[in-house]
Amino acid sequence: MCMQTFTEKLEVSTSGELDIIDITGRIQEIVKRSRVRDGTVTVFVAGSTAAITTIEYEPGLRSDMQRALSMLFPKDLEYEHHKRWGDYNGHSHIRASFIGPSITIPITDSSLTLGRWQQVVLIELDVTPRRRSLVVKIMGE
Amino acid sequence: MCMQTFTEKLEVSTSGELDIIDITGRIQEIVKRSRVRDGTVTVFVAGSTAAITTIEYEPGLRSDMQRALSMLFPKDLEYEHHKRWGDYNGHSHIRASFIGPSITIPITDSSLTLGRWQQVVLIELDVTPRRRSLVVKIMGE
Amino acid sequence: MCMQTFTEKLEVSTSGELDIIDITGRIQEIVKRSRVRDGTVTVFVAGSTAAITTIEYEPGLRSDMQRALSMLFPKDLEYEHHKRWGDYNGHSHIRASFIGPSITIPITDSSLTLGRWQQVVLIELDVTPRRRSLVVKIMGE
Repeated sequence: MCMQTFTEKLEVSTSGELDIIDITGRIQEIVKRSRVRDGTVTVFVAGSTAAITTIEYEPGLRSDMQRALSMLFPKDLEYEHHKRWGDYNGHSHIRASFIGPSITIPITDSSLTLGRWQQVVLIELDVTPRRRSLVVKIMGE
Repeated sequence: MCMQTFTEKLEVSTSGELDIIDITGRIQEIVKRSRVRDGTVTVFVAGSTAAITTIEYEPGLRSDMQRALSMLFPKDLEYEHHKRWGDYNGHSHIRASFIGPSITIPITDSSLTLGRWQQVVLIELDVTPRRRSLVVKIMGE
Repeated sequence: MCMQTFTEKLEVSTSGELDIIDITGRIQEIVKRSRVRDGTVTVFVAGSTAAITTIEYEPGLRSDMQRALSMLFPKDLEYEHHKRWGDYNGHSHIRASFIGPSITIPITDSSLTLGRWQQVVLIELDVTPRRRSLVVKIMGE
């Protein structure tokens, strides 16, 4: 079979700061639609105040992740970004740059090669609810 | 030459919490076996309490990395994950989500384009020795 | 059209520790030269004391990012790497391993699918100015 690319946009609405959303099922559906059985999928969020990673998606860890982000990158520091632009989200940008905007996952037998308790999540880091645009790019055969 | 995909599983046994293992040689061997001369390799660990990154692999930095993870994500905080599931590894999950489960590296002339003192490592973040399953997915020509 | 690979080296001179350089324009030019309209680009820095991520590139956030790195990974701790090798950059290595050496970004209609205020940056983490070698690997059709 021939190598090909397949792309879909994924729109995700977030409820506000530190919302963590499981997007595994929606990515797996796109992989199925692509008919790519062997390759990779890159999930990329366009925007500088959201991030993508993997985590075991359960309420305890959602809460632990939120606390870790809040402790390591406090909101109540004075951010130069805010002083210049007045948008109160300097910490959001820094958190996003540390976690990163994308992930690339192998596809084998038309499935993501995730562990059983490993989900792909979008983390909203901005201070208000947002509608996020993700690009899901699949390459393979 | 034609674009193709090539996949191997890589099984890695870890000695316990904060073990850091150099997997560069094993990935390079898989690249050689794939006969792909130009492309990328994605290394992905299935599981939510291990991570992959690059580091200069020497004992001093292994120790410095272990200290940084312990300081930034303390074990002795109370984790909601533990309160729900009783498995004493909430910090392991959070550390793994920050570092990330995968890396994508270019292949040129059948070799990884790493720096001379830059190795690919698997970091065991769980609290017991584990047998880890990594997927090594190569795409290229 | 046929899937292909396209590679260019990108040399970037940095001014010293915590220099943050916007490389978005240079990557976009390479994408144009590749004539790949649909695929991915992987940007990888060879070396263990530099990192790549995305951020809104403006002076306030540059400063906020520099402070976050300095607070989370202090220079004035005693690093085992320094005790062994005497090069005063243990913190540089640890910072680089946390942020990571690479990013993979989708290409659609010959363009990076970045947000409007989302730039790709190289972060110099070593303690002196360096000339950095990045590999820009494009795959697609």
